[in-house]
Amino acid sequence: MTPKLRVAVIGAGYWGPNLARNFSTSAEWTLVAICDLDRDRAQALADRVGQVEVYSNLDELLARDDIDAVAIATPARTHHAVVMAALRAGKHVVVEKPIADSRERAIDMVSEAARRGLTLMTDHTYCYTPAVLKIRELIAGGALGELLFIDSVRINLGLVQPDVDVLWDLAPHDLSIIDFVVPTGLRPASVSAHGADPLGAGKACVGYLTFLLENGGIAHVHVNWLSPTKIRRMVIGGTLRTLVWDDLNPQQRLSLYDRGVDLNQQSVDEADRRSSAISYRLGDTWSPALPEHEALTAMATEFAGSIREHRPARTDGEAGLRVLSVLEAASRSLAAAGSMSAVEQSAEQQVEVLPVEASAALAGVSR
Amino acid sequence: MTPKLRVAVIGAGYWGPNLARNFSTSAEWTLVAICDLDRDRAQALADRVGQVEVYSNLDELLARDDIDAVAIATPARTHHAVVMAALRAGKHVVVEKPIADSRERAIDMVSEAARRGLTLMTDHTYCYTPAVLKIRELIAGGALGELLFIDSVRINLGLVQPDVDVLWDLAPHDLSIIDFVVPTGLRPASVSAHGADPLGAGKACVGYLTFLLENGGIAHVHVNWLSPTKIRRMVIGGTLRTLVWDDLNPQQRLSLYDRGVDLNQQSVDEADRRSSAISYRLGDTWSPALPEHEALTAMATEFAGSIREHRPARTDGEAGLRVLSVLEAASRSLAAAGSMSAVEQSAEQQVEVLPVEASAALAGVSR
Amino acid sequence: MTPKLRVAVIGAGYWGPNLARNFSTSAEWTLVAICDLDRDRAQALADRVGQVEVYSNLDELLARDDIDAVAIATPARTHHAVVMAALRAGKHVVVEKPIADSRERAIDMVSEAARRGLTLMTDHTYCYTPAVLKIRELIAGGALGELLFIDSVRINLGLVQPDVDVLWDLAPHDLSIIDFVVPTGLRPASVSAHGADPLGAGKACVGYLTFLLENGGIAHVHVNWLSPTKIRRMVIGGTLRTLVWDDLNPQQRLSLYDRGVDLNQQSVDEADRRSSAISYRLGDTWSPALPEHEALTAMATEFAGSIREHRPARTDGEAGLRVLSVLEAASRSLAAAGSMSAVEQSAEQQVEVLPVEASAALAGVSR
Amino acid sequence: MTPKLRVAVIGAGYWGPNLARNFSTSAEWTLVAICDLDRDRAQALADRVGQVEVYSNLDELLARDDIDAVAIATPARTHHAVVMAALRAGKHVVVEKPIADSRERAIDMVSEAARRGLTLMTDHTYCYTPAVLKIRELIAGGALGELLFIDSVRINLGLVQPDVDVLWDLAPHDLSIIDFVVPTGLRPASVSAHGADPLGAGKACVGYLTFLLENGGIAHVHVNWLSPTKIRRMVIGGTLRTLVWDDLNPQQRLSLYDRGVDLNQQSVDEADRRSSAISYRLGDTWSPALPEHEALTAMATEFAGSIREHRPARTDGEAGLRVLSVLEAASRSLAAAGSMSAVEQSAEQQVEVLPVEASAALAGVSR
Repeated sequence: MTPKLRVAVIGAGYWGPNLARNFSTSAEWTLVAICDLDRDRAQALADRVGQVEVYSNLDELLARDDIDAVAIATPARTHHAVVMAALRAGKHVVVEKPIADSRERAIDMVSEAARRGLTLMTDHTYCYTPAVLKIRELIAGGALGELLFIDSVRINLGLVQPDVDVLWDLAPHDLSIIDFVVPTGLRPASVSAHGADPLGAGKACVGYLTFLLENGGIAHVHVNWLSPTKIRRMVIGGTLRTLVWDDLNPQQRLSLYDRGVDLNQQSVDEADRRSSAISYRLGDTWSPALPEHEALTAMATEFAGSIREHRPARTDGEAGLRVLSVLEAASRSLAAAGSMSAVEQSAEQQVEVLPVEASAALAGVSR
Repeated sequence: MTPKLRVAVIGAGYWGPNLARNFSTSAEWTLVAICDLDRDRAQALADRVGQVEVYSNLDELLARDDIDAVAIATPARTHHAVVMAALRAGKHVVVEKPIADSRERAIDMVSEAARRGLTLMTDHTYCYTPAVLKIRELIAGGALGELLFIDSVRINLGLVQPDVDVLWDLAPHDLSIIDFVVPTGLRPASVSAHGADPLGAGKACVGYLTFLLENGGIAHVHVNWLSPTKIRRMVIGGTLRTLVWDDLNPQQRLSLYDRGVDLNQQSVDEADRRSSAISYRLGDTWSPALPEHEALTAMATEFAGSIREHRPARTDGEAGLRVLSVLEAASRSLAAAGSMSAVEQSAEQQVEVLPVEASAALAGVSR
Repeated sequence: MTPKLRVAVIGAGYWGPNLARNFSTSAEWTLVAICDLDRDRAQALADRVGQVEVYSNLDELLARDDIDAVAIATPARTHHAVVMAALRAGKHVVVEKPIADSRERAIDMVSEAARRGLTLMTDHTYCYTPAVLKIRELIAGGALGELLFIDSVRINLGLVQPDVDVLWDLAPHDLSIIDFVVPTGLRPASVSAHGADPLGAGKACVGYLTFLLENGGIAHVHVNWLSPTKIRRMVIGGTLRTLVWDDLNPQQRLSLYDRGVDLNQQSVDEADRRSSAISYRLGDTWSPALPEHEALTAMATEFAGSIREHRPARTDGEAGLRVLSVLEAASRSLAAAGSMSAVEQSAEQQVEVLPVEASAALAGVSR
Repeated sequence: MTPKLRVAVIGAGYWGPNLARNFSTSAEWTLVAICDLDRDRAQALADRVGQVEVYSNLDELLARDDIDAVAIATPARTHHAVVMAALRAGKHVVVEKPIADSRERAIDMVSEAARRGLTLMTDHTYCYTPAVLKIRELIAGGALGELLFIDSVRINLGLVQPDVDVLWDLAPHDLSIIDFVVPTGLRPASVSAHGADPLGAGKACVGYLTFLLENGGIAHVHVNWLSPTKIRRMVIGGTLRTLVWDDLNPQQRLSLYDRGVDLNQQSVDEADRRSSAISYRLGDTWSPALPEHEALTAMATEFAGSIREHRPARTDGEAGLRVLSVLEAASRSLAAAGSMSAVEQSAEQQVEVLPVEASAALAGVSR
């Protein structure tokens, strides 16, 4: 039997307890320590999850050589410092989204992990829900055909925060999901963002984000803090079928429609013939059963798998960086009245990266 | 008792029969003739609505001096010629949307009607549905407070047409409704449009339209021909309440939510205090009962009222022109990758217009 | 090419116009006459459907020997007299539900038709909707397995009528559908009915009807005139799958759930082991596409098929009699505080019936 | 400041942990001990809720004189013995539903509590949800007018249990809610129950329960373990308004419809005039905002209030007995093919009861 990997949770605030609870009950992991600047908060969390040690000093924690990995749930502005320290101490890392507060720092982190052959994973939790895992599987299996459009709506009465606008608050969910399910990942050349702050809150409370998919399709994200009705729905249209994910309908989260418009490509050269070349499919609808599991459990398992198999995690640091790159471009577009704003290249094209496999020997994984 | 007004329907194709049926049963109108280039088609329609005369020659029809008004349901490219002929013959006019195929021609039509003191009305039928009339009334009465955002979704498997894109096909509904319910009408300075033609149909099949409301709020329209699920929903957020219109839920079309985010304006000078200045209202939801009536019946009544009372119709030629102006700007934006495109001034600011009241004496209304 | 059959519609009130319109546009039928005691009403209907003759005298109509069949939409209390006259005149008959106002008279009518080898069909229109035809097909094909339960809800603000209670007004729809889709038809040995008249309207406005299916399953019908929300939903549970028909959800009328409870029959002899013998299927949901057609068109086609092929119609007189038998038993149960009330035998067991095939020679079908 | 009351939880199985957690965080209560025959299970629960003592011997626990009350979550068949022991030890008691496994024993318990002036409360948790508290308030305030009908549906894929049928498993929820919201409580003279066991599970898996309300209205409960779709909806129709509670729609749990049928009572003496005396209200729909709180917290507060104020709890032992009485009558009806079965008198009419107020002095409440 493979021995369990050993992990510490850093940050005992909002999200840390969820991480601690999941690692402490995981078949892959032993939770050995919790670290927080506020020692009392760390201790309170430790009491709830059983026999783990408590640290308020990060360096002390990282100095331990019986810890394989750390899970970081500190504020975004601290991610770079904490992650870099952990990587330098030879620890594998999973870090909350956003991976960092700037692309530059994120690239630094991704490069460092690659150089050291360590796993750097972004905790895009939504990607590990049964619904999103199924969507990824369906698209990869060709059930939708070529993707034509993705339309995502995530609106609800929300936290109007003075330091983060609604795009940075909510769109990371949609973007990380799109990155996860689209076979080529989230790699738009440019994005357009529109927003409004009609309350005078100081930041956009309503946001719209648009970009093109690689094949000419379109993606659109609508996020809104001011809506009294809650909607979380993503429609993914393909040439073969269209998928609707209604996350607030537990009785039928996913619906796959064998309905759509078909264009007979052979007769598009002439307007009159073109219109007659259109036909409609009005086929059945199918709603696959979804297994029940907690997303964080699957995330923890993937983290372990990445470490043990010396492969990138499904939501690796690059994924976090791609999401961050789009958010930064969106902010520039928002400032420029919605003009298309170029998305900067991702790290994989910018930094010299050792293959994960090749550099695994450096990683000091406890096996 | 006021004698009925006398009307002829021009165009017996798709929409003409609906007009004929409504005018023939209206308490305000006597339907006296039907005109179509295809005399058989006109005759077939005449047979169904009772004792009316049939014309295939427009000039013959317009030469009759016992006809007060005409309702025009011919193709958009013919609107200018037919409307101008009717106006010159002294007839009041209601014409299908879009009012014309170019702003220039629409301005010409609006000016001509104004000069002659005749009613020129656009048949924005949706505006006369019970739901939209109630929305207008609620907003005018202050039930929503200041408008913060309008988000309209109109998606369905639709006709992919080679000569009209999805914005020109579907967005006129949303735009005419916004023009109707927003107290200041549809007067954005500029608009941004994004679209995609992932099927290679020759025109955008998915479209997004964004513009700012006068007070800093935002409006957004999503139209889509490729969606297997049908959605027709408009959310109008205000400082006091938010209204949701779900046109496909006959049991609760309108919902008025006394829920929202409140910002204490007195303490926005400092980030820390700002976040604490936010509060949430989580009040009741109210769904007003709607009367049942056919929209076209209400439209015909409004047409008569405009003529009798020498006042602009609620959806007058100017309204049609405002919608057309936004559509033209949207097309320019679409061609420019979504860049904000200026909406040209409306006719009221461009042409010298006699007040309708003052020029009514010219109009030869039969009373 | 087979010549069309020739039909007359008797009764030009509420339902007759629907019949006339459908027969007049049917590929199988020529509508030749309309008969109503109120000659003006008959004439007005005739004007709308084209060149047909008008009668106010039934005998004159029936005396014509160029009419194959009649469709009867007169009040229920007249059905017996009109149908018997038509059968005696050698006409095939389709008659509105309920087939008669008493079992005795219905048996008389069924017997007469059988004796003469004529088609006697009940217009259970709902059975010819795409949804119900598909349900019948699915059950017949074994998709549900053995039927375990049928639960039908049909509630809405309705007409409180002084001469008919809610069971007689609404439950015929549910009962005729159950008769149509259950392979063995509607043949309960007894029924229980509960009802209430809380408004003091003179008749039950809320009704519940319960009976056992042949295999030990249970059927239940809930009808209600006082509900402000409209529900029309039937759930049919089977050993393999469960079907939900939500008639007010046009986007997904039928859903077939591969979910249920499985009982391992081998270990039911002991309580402890029994509980462990239960397992759950949590499979996919499937919603078949439904063709679009008008139910009455399919009904008219079935009527023609029955006549041409000398076979009972799918909703024959026997079906109408089975529904009537349950309604009569329900009324007795209602009067007896819900006690199980025996359903009287159907005609097929009571009267000597010539096989339809054998007696077809007597029928004088015009072919 | 009033000192907290002191409580012990007896039974650490399925429901006990919920009780322990709520009492341990209540402003009214101090949780002092947990008792379970399985000492390890009791200890595990104690560890999770903080500093409480653990007992495996009931007598030891009850011998403590610093405990005011016990909350009992042991199996139903043990309720009588445990509750009687607790009452004899002078403790106030809240006990899980059903209050006992027979009416006779329940009456014994209710009498004992009354004689000793102790609170005996049934934990009808559902009654303390925000939705049900609001329903009770609306009905008490006259918002619905006279009650005309109650229709409750509670269906889902459920536990097919060999020792309890679906009526005993699920209907207590509906019955306790009806008891709670109907001003006169649950006091039907008789009930009818229908059920089926189509799987051969040994007990009814589908059940229907019908009884009359005091004023001639009707109540009906549909419970079903075999439905793949989950429905929890109660419709309560009144002369003024109708309330729909859809517990699975968190965005609009309660809807109050100002819609209904009105009967002009002055003209019901004649059939013809009666039909014309009917009119319809088609007014607005209103959905009240509901506060968010956990039901068990409100239950614990009510338990404390009952003790401190020497008044019956809202869901007192009598309420538990009324529910039990209906269930027993339902079982008799089920065995008699749905015949109306008399509901036996409740304890208040059978046993000599000291007024709670008068006998409070006996109760040894620690204040």
